[in-house]
Amino acid sequence: MAMTDDEKLMTAYHEAGHAIVGRIVPKHDPVYKVTIIPRGRALGVTMFLPERDKYSQSKIALESSIATLFGGRIAEAMIYGEDEVTTGASNDIARATTLAKNMVTKWGLSDKLGPQMFTKDEYEEELGAASGDTLKIIDAEVKRILDENYDNAEKVLKENEDILHAMAKALMKYETINSDQIDDLMARRPVRSVDDIDDDDLSTDDSEEDKHDGIPSTVHRSL
Amino acid sequence: MAMTDDEKLMTAYHEAGHAIVGRIVPKHDPVYKVTIIPRGRALGVTMFLPERDKYSQSKIALESSIATLFGGRIAEAMIYGEDEVTTGASNDIARATTLAKNMVTKWGLSDKLGPQMFTKDEYEEELGAASGDTLKIIDAEVKRILDENYDNAEKVLKENEDILHAMAKALMKYETINSDQIDDLMARRPVRSVDDIDDDDLSTDDSEEDKHDGIPSTVHRSL
Amino acid sequence: MAMTDDEKLMTAYHEAGHAIVGRIVPKHDPVYKVTIIPRGRALGVTMFLPERDKYSQSKIALESSIATLFGGRIAEAMIYGEDEVTTGASNDIARATTLAKNMVTKWGLSDKLGPQMFTKDEYEEELGAASGDTLKIIDAEVKRILDENYDNAEKVLKENEDILHAMAKALMKYETINSDQIDDLMARRPVRSVDDIDDDDLSTDDSEEDKHDGIPSTVHRSL
Amino acid sequence: MAMTDDEKLMTAYHEAGHAIVGRIVPKHDPVYKVTIIPRGRALGVTMFLPERDKYSQSKIALESSIATLFGGRIAEAMIYGEDEVTTGASNDIARATTLAKNMVTKWGLSDKLGPQMFTKDEYEEELGAASGDTLKIIDAEVKRILDENYDNAEKVLKENEDILHAMAKALMKYETINSDQIDDLMARRPVRSVDDIDDDDLSTDDSEEDKHDGIPSTVHRSL
Amino acid sequence: MAMTDDEKLMTAYHEAGHAIVGRIVPKHDPVYKVTIIPRGRALGVTMFLPERDKYSQSKIALESSIATLFGGRIAEAMIYGEDEVTTGASNDIARATTLAKNMVTKWGLSDKLGPQMFTKDEYEEELGAASGDTLKIIDAEVKRILDENYDNAEKVLKENEDILHAMAKALMKYETINSDQIDDLMARRPVRSVDDIDDDDLSTDDSEEDKHDGIPSTVHRSL
Amino acid sequence: MAMTDDEKLMTAYHEAGHAIVGRIVPKHDPVYKVTIIPRGRALGVTMFLPERDKYSQSKIALESSIATLFGGRIAEAMIYGEDEVTTGASNDIARATTLAKNMVTKWGLSDKLGPQMFTKDEYEEELGAASGDTLKIIDAEVKRILDENYDNAEKVLKENEDILHAMAKALMKYETINSDQIDDLMARRPVRSVDDIDDDDLSTDDSEEDKHDGIPSTVHRSL
Repeated sequence: MAMTDDEKLMTAYHEAGHAIVGRIVPKHDPVYKVTIIPRGRALGVTMFLPERDKYSQSKIALESSIATLFGGRIAEAMIYGEDEVTTGASNDIARATTLAKNMVTKWGLSDKLGPQMFTKDEYEEELGAASGDTLKIIDAEVKRILDENYDNAEKVLKENEDILHAMAKALMKYETINSDQIDDLMARRPVRSVDDIDDDDLSTDDSEEDKHDGIPSTVHRSL
Repeated sequence: MAMTDDEKLMTAYHEAGHAIVGRIVPKHDPVYKVTIIPRGRALGVTMFLPERDKYSQSKIALESSIATLFGGRIAEAMIYGEDEVTTGASNDIARATTLAKNMVTKWGLSDKLGPQMFTKDEYEEELGAASGDTLKIIDAEVKRILDENYDNAEKVLKENEDILHAMAKALMKYETINSDQIDDLMARRPVRSVDDIDDDDLSTDDSEEDKHDGIPSTVHRSL
Repeated sequence: MAMTDDEKLMTAYHEAGHAIVGRIVPKHDPVYKVTIIPRGRALGVTMFLPERDKYSQSKIALESSIATLFGGRIAEAMIYGEDEVTTGASNDIARATTLAKNMVTKWGLSDKLGPQMFTKDEYEEELGAASGDTLKIIDAEVKRILDENYDNAEKVLKENEDILHAMAKALMKYETINSDQIDDLMARRPVRSVDDIDDDDLSTDDSEEDKHDGIPSTVHRSL
Repeated sequence: MAMTDDEKLMTAYHEAGHAIVGRIVPKHDPVYKVTIIPRGRALGVTMFLPERDKYSQSKIALESSIATLFGGRIAEAMIYGEDEVTTGASNDIARATTLAKNMVTKWGLSDKLGPQMFTKDEYEEELGAASGDTLKIIDAEVKRILDENYDNAEKVLKENEDILHAMAKALMKYETINSDQIDDLMARRPVRSVDDIDDDDLSTDDSEEDKHDGIPSTVHRSL
Repeated sequence: MAMTDDEKLMTAYHEAGHAIVGRIVPKHDPVYKVTIIPRGRALGVTMFLPERDKYSQSKIALESSIATLFGGRIAEAMIYGEDEVTTGASNDIARATTLAKNMVTKWGLSDKLGPQMFTKDEYEEELGAASGDTLKIIDAEVKRILDENYDNAEKVLKENEDILHAMAKALMKYETINSDQIDDLMARRPVRSVDDIDDDDLSTDDSEEDKHDGIPSTVHRSL
Repeated sequence: MAMTDDEKLMTAYHEAGHAIVGRIVPKHDPVYKVTIIPRGRALGVTMFLPERDKYSQSKIALESSIATLFGGRIAEAMIYGEDEVTTGASNDIARATTLAKNMVTKWGLSDKLGPQMFTKDEYEEELGAASGDTLKIIDAEVKRILDENYDNAEKVLKENEDILHAMAKALMKYETINSDQIDDLMARRPVRSVDDIDDDDLSTDDSEEDKHDGIPSTVHRSL
């Protein structure tokens, strides 16, 4: 199923949005490759290089992940307008919501609720949130975390809209850009050409990571 | 099971309602054929020509789909009065509701709720909406989207009531009208006669499309 | 199990209540036969002649069906008093409730809620009504439709109480009355005698109709 | 398991309570036998003679059944005080509650809710009561019916406390009393002796009746 | 698993608490033996002698059972302070709660709710309590019954704290005390020595009684 | 999977937090060993020596367990700041929540709710908490217990921040420290070197203890 140039460009802006936010927010795994070659249900993919195996995620790293997940959708809205925002960000939204929900109900990372478990425990008994009042606070905290990081990602992209255009353009030209090229783009330098991109690096098998509470090691615009 | 002329006429108005709204709302797939020959549970069918395979749907296109789905029902009410509105629009209503609900809970297309998932995630864990307050906003947003697009479709049909009558008349005469004839009707020109309609074009197998979150490629008045 | 004359008379009034309302409310299928000969769980049956196969039901026809279903119960209350009203109308009540509920939640026939689906969709996903506020409106709308049509049926029977007595008397005399005799009764004419009633017409197998969203083609006083 | 005389006397008062209320409330099946010989889980039994097979139950007859069911418990409270009321009335309470609930949710016999079904329909779809407001009215109506008939039964027993003592005394003497003896007691006449009580009449197999929505044909003080 | 003397003493106070309350509250089965020899999950056991097989339980006897169940816990709190109260009373608490709940929802022994069933009936249909308002009253009534009997048991133990100390001391000396010794303690007489305690009397198999709605014939401090 | 020195240090602070709180709060089992050698899903482990088999847990001991569970998380926040707090405390949080919930709903250790069971009883019937009001109090009580013990643990660690640094340093040096070394650290003495640590003591098989309502005999920072 061939993509039109319009679709490719929208995907390029979407992935560039992920990549730029991922590069700028604190404590995020380094973005090392972005592609608009479709694979499976992904129209494009942004890839992160975990510098080392991580034992646990800090609050600030989780928030940066949420911001990066929102980057694609925000780029669409900035370039095409809110009315043209597409259903393509649904996977990003699901993962960001999962992270925010876990922060509040499982990892004790909401100041308002404190270190309490609000999910089932390991013996499948319901813990914590029983009353409507508590559920209301959980909802509000999840929304707050999502909103704050959406706003943060939007601020990052608005301050770097020139890079967004440049990266989308580079993706239309090369289809895949690597870490060095992303460095050029982030530094507002001319993008170096790439002679040889090893196709193995592009593997997008994120099934393993998806099981770890939705912590993204790739993000993609989905079919 | 033979239809009476009264039934045929009501079906003609119903399908003409879909077709006219589908032609006028922005970013909608082009309407290319309308028929009142019953097939299966459909008393009549309005068909859309997807210009290209779509990877994702924009917010505005989804809203246009909802308006088009409501077009049939609104035409019934306009011509026969609210008391004579029939149960024949139940499939349209179900599909419009599914689209509006997904926009709000899955695709992050409600400004009030923002980019958050309110359905189960891929691991069947409930996301988002836990409290009665959030559910109330979801209900209100779904209703707002439906109401706005119902009103829009009604405005379109009221401004083009002459075309509605002309198209219903053409359907009673030809039973099936094609894209050229619809062009004539929309342009308020005399409807050209059609010598040969290839029956293959009338295939109404929409089972495939129905699975893609209810995005309509045909709409019909149902038994 | 032999019925006493008292039981027979109460059944006669019950069925006459259905028949008279069914004859007077607008857009109702014609009542063509009434009997107080018990069959299965029915103590008496009122039969309707669908003039043609119907593709869809109009709002006004659905409301007339609800009124007709209530006719039996109202006749009991009028003649014997509210305290003597029996459990025999439970099937009528269930069918009237089903119709009213579908009008509101499935067929978009409540002005307050508009064209929205509030039941599960075809993929078994819950649509629409999530919050307590919406459920409250659904309840109120269902009750309003039932109440309005109950009141309407009561008005019809109070204005035609003489026909009610005459029809009950005719049923006690003939046990079954046909369309011509019902015509006589509705016209306040003496009831013609019937020489020959073909027993086949009395078949009360309504299992098929029951499956179509409870649209009544027979109504009966149940065991 | 032998009963003490104290237990026997309490059972005698309990059954006499059922019998006297059942004799006095309107439209109740005639009480024809009372026994304090235990059978199965019943410590004593009050039996009713259905005069004919009934096709349906009137509202007033249902309310009399509820009052009669409460008669046993009220007798205990009158004679022994509220603190000595026992768990022996739990079966009576369950059956009275079932009747009151069906009157309100199935048989349309609550003025406040009117002729509407609030249980699942025959296709197992939930009807009617969706909102908390409606549930509150259902609860209130069920309680009102129970309270009114409890109060009525209490009034009956207070006005006939002499008969209550006389009947309990007769039960202690004869263990089983028949219709003629109950006639004597209700007429405040000396109780005739019974030479021969056919044991077959005492069969208390009420499994059949229990299935008909709890309409009592026997009531008993349960183990 | 050997108990320390501290554990033994705490158990002695716990069982003495049960025994003293059980001896003093009205209509309670007679306490005839208390032991601090552990068996199964019981660290100590207080045994009651049912004077005869009971057919039903009176309201006052049920309340006395609740008070007696709380006796163990109250003794712990009196002697060791609220902070040292242990998890050992969880079985007592569960049984007291079951009794109070049944009194309110099954046996009609709450004045506020009256003789109504609020559990499922024998055909597994939900009876009674549907609305939040009714549930609130049920909760309040259950809590009231528990609180009143807790307070009553506490009053009993405070007025007899000297007996509590004496009985705990006797249990530390003899490990098991019988009915005569309990008589001595309740009468504030020196405790007679026991030459021979038939071990058969100590059987604590209460599995049978536990099935009868939690009416205690033994109570114990649990592991 | 090798841990970086940064990870090791964070784990050292986490475990030291557990150990110091566990040593200072009243009635807690003695901390006898702490290690940052990872095992299974544990990045580090703090071990407690139950002085004797316990038959039941007192309220104060349960609260001390909750405080100790929170010690690890609080140490992370104190040293690295709230933003750097990690998901590694999720197991601690789950266990603390389980303890607090059981205190309130099972062991009768909330003054506000008193000795009542709010879980299912042994026959799987729901006890107690039915209404939203009661659930609200349960939620509030669970939160209060967690908050009070979190605050208490935080106070302990702030008053002993010098010991926290010293213990983390000792753990980085020795990887495992024993009871004598912990004694030195708690007394602010130089830490004695350990010539021989028997590896058998380090067994962290806590599967058995985990089954006893989450009462911790080891706590760990989890993967």
